[in-house]
Order: sequence, then C-alpha cells, then structure tokens
Amino acid sequence: MALQAAGRQSLVDSVVDTLRAQLTAGEWQVGSRIPTEHALAEQLQVGRNTVREAVRVLVHAGMLRSRQGEGTFVVSTTDPGDVMRGVQRAGIRDVLELRIALEAEAARLAALRHQPADLERMRAALDAQAELADAAGQPHSDTLELYADHDIAFHKAVVEAAHNTALTATYGWFSSSVRESLVSYLDDRAMPEIVHGDHVAVLDAIAAGDPEAAQQAIRDVLEKPMRAVEALLATR
Amino acid sequence: MALQAAGRQSLVDSVVDTLRAQLTAGEWQVGSRIPTEHALAEQLQVGRNTVREAVRVLVHAGMLRSRQGEGTFVVSTTDPGDVMRGVQRAGIRDVLELRIALEAEAARLAALRHQPADLERMRAALDAQAELADAAGQPHSDTLELYADHDIAFHKAVVEAAHNTALTATYGWFSSSVRESLVSYLDDRAMPEIVHGDHVAVLDAIAAGDPEAAQQAIRDVLEKPMRAVEALLATR
Repeated sequence: MALQAAGRQSLVDSVVDTLRAQLTAGEWQVGSRIPTEHALAEQLQVGRNTVREAVRVLVHAGMLRSRQGEGTFVVSTTDPGDVMRGVQRAGIRDVLELRIALEAEAARLAALRHQPADLERMRAALDAQAELADAAGQPHSDTLELYADHDIAFHKAVVEAAHNTALTATYGWFSSSVRESLVSYLDDRAMPEIVHGDHVAVLDAIAAGDPEAAQQAIRDVLEKPMRAVEALLATR
Repeated sequence: MALQAAGRQSLVDSVVDTLRAQLTAGEWQVGSRIPTEHALAEQLQVGRNTVREAVRVLVHAGMLRSRQGEGTFVVSTTDPGDVMRGVQRAGIRDVLELRIALEAEAARLAALRHQPADLERMRAALDAQAELADAAGQPHSDTLELYADHDIAFHKAVVEAAHNTALTATYGWFSSSVRESLVSYLDDRAMPEIVHGDHVAVLDAIAAGDPEAAQQAIRDVLEKPMRAVEALLATR
C-alpha cells in the first residue's frame, strides 16, 4: 500500500493515521510486537525515517511502547487523544454527569479510607473560602477566581482521599481539560453560587465514615451547576 | 536554553519533553497560542524541523491544535497518554473501582433515558450468553472467550443506554485498555463466574426505570470480580 501526502497533511501524518487505524481495528493485540521499521517502510512504501517519526508520535500518544533492542509493542488499541477530544466535544450536561460519576464514587471510598491529612486538606480549602466571603457567606466579586481555586482544591482533596490512583489520574485529567469549557459556558450571571454549608456536609460525612451520606452530599453539591446548565439549555 | 540529545533519546523527544513540561506547568493557558516555530527554535536552540516534529507529537497527543495560518493553540494542559499510563500502572483494585464509578452512574442514567433499542441490545447479549451455557447455567469451557465477549457487549450496552457521549468515550477507552490486564491478572481458576441472573436484574431495573435499583444491581454484578481480586491480594 503506497501512501501519498494529501494536501497539507504530511507523509508522517498519513503513516500515523494508517498505523492508528490498524491499531484501533485490533490488527495487533495489546502486548504484541508490531512489524519492524524496515518491514513497515516496505509495506507502506515510505522511508524508514518517516516510519520512525510516526512510531514516535504513537509512543507519545500512549498507544505503543519501544523497548530498546526488542522492538515496538502495542500498549493500547484506543487513542487517549481521541478520548480527550471526544469528551471535549461532548455537551456540557454529559461532562457534568461524568464528573458526578467520578466524584460520587470517590466520596464513598473517601468515607472508608480517609487519613487525618485528607480531612485537614479539605478543611483548609473550606476555611480559605470562608475567609474570602462576606458576612452573608457570599464571595467578594474581586476575589472570585481565588474562591473558585479553593473550590477546586476541595474537590481534588475529596478525590485524593479515596486513595485510588486510577480515579485520581482520571479525575485530574478530566478536571483540568474540562474546567475551562465549563467556565466559558456558564457566564458569571448563570454560574451558581458555591454554598459553603453544602461542602461542610461532604466533609462531615467523610469524617464520620458514612459512604452513603458522603455520596449523597457530593451529589447535592454538584446538583446546583447541573440545574444551572439545564436551565440555560432550556432557554435555547 | 540549549538542548542536548542525551543518550538514546533523540532531540525531538527532548523538545517534546520540554514543551510538555511547559504545558503541564500551565505556562500557556488552554485556548492561548504558543510561540511560533521560529521563536521556539531560537529559544531551544534547535532546528525548525525539530520543533515541527515535536509539535506534531503534541498535536496527536491531544495537547495542542494547529490552525492553518493562525498558529498552534493549547487544547489541554494534561497529557492523555500520561493519564492512560497512570491508570495502567494502578493496582487492579483501583482499576475495578474506577469501572464501578463509571458503570454505576451509567446504570442510573440508563434507567432514566433508555430507548427500546438499548434494552434489545442488552437482552440480545444475555440471550447469546444463555445459549452458550449448560443446563446448570455454567458456560462451556470451549466457548469461554465468546461468553466473555457477550458479557462485554452487555456492559457496553448499559453504558450506551445512558446516552452520554463523555461517559461512553471514557468507558470505551478504559475498558479496552484495562481489560487485558484484568484477564491476565485473574487466571481462569480465580476468575469469578458470570452469573446470568445478576445481569438480568440489571436489565429489569433499567427497563423498570428505577435508577437506584439499577445502580445497586450493577454494583452487585461487579462485586464478584472485586471479591476475587481482594481474595487474591490477601494471599500474597
């Protein structure tokens, strides 16, 4: 099969697309070795340097792994970059529901596994928020961004208190890539207030070691942005 | 800052690492434009081709996006490949808990949003499994793999019935990259049986439109592999 550089797309990009298509189609199983650089260059009728560059792209993408002297092996048949692009293209309601899925389970597990340091981190974030609020518990308009940072720190501390590295990695990716779209979607007016008491309820349930109450408390917190999104969607 | 190719790592890989470190450190915000190829080549004291190749790697990885004639923009400050490697390195218990988080929320939403075609897909997977089982409801040893494929199809149908593209994308990535490690971890002996009745309970709760029952039913299904994992971990 010969590849031609089409339009502005480079030959390397074409080889990346071809190899990725073969990987996602399951042509090579996870853990197996793909053909050598030489064999791929012959098969695709391109230079070995082009193959090398394309393989490098797929190694960085997390689909292949090169072991010196042994060859190149399949790590995953799904492209993590595609998954991220898929989540970013998803509607804001879908993204919030994914967040609820991750945080609700994290809160359950946090109630069972938290260490004293976890509770201290949650409490510190809530205390820092309280200091930025006025007598009525509302954040000052000139420190809104800092207030939001403490909110993020609180939710991150809840997820970390589950002591699950797979959950923490997925949530970290998710929250950093999705936060911007949420902020830009909900303008200041539509953004629901962050209610201090709701967050204290999450901390209390986790500290009390009550998984069901912790899960419900975090659902109550996340229900407010969900309702704001639904209200905005309904007016369109 | 000048970069030197260290050992077997190529100059392109070094530039990729440098740019990735700048991205994850938040040096450029999501949505902003990074410096031009020319400026980066000067700054890093490498050739423009090297910069171009490194940028290509990060575009494919889902961190950058190039817009013709406009420049290169930041899409994400987290590397999806890193997230995948993090989840793959996580312990098997952590991975199963992440699966429970995604499937429990999917089952809740499926109870509220399923279409007739969703229920048909679930039922077809369970019927196909039943045909592979003997009179006692146990799978025949010579069709175990096919039996497992139908199990995967059932769980996939549950997640799709939530009609949430972010959940579906994340679950699809997750299940394809993680399945292999689960199968290799639990050898045939330790692998818990797939209980037909447990799966029917999930389908019934979703069909009845009962989110809490659906969530509990899928937790009951996933509790069995979790117990098998915990039993194996305890003997080590």
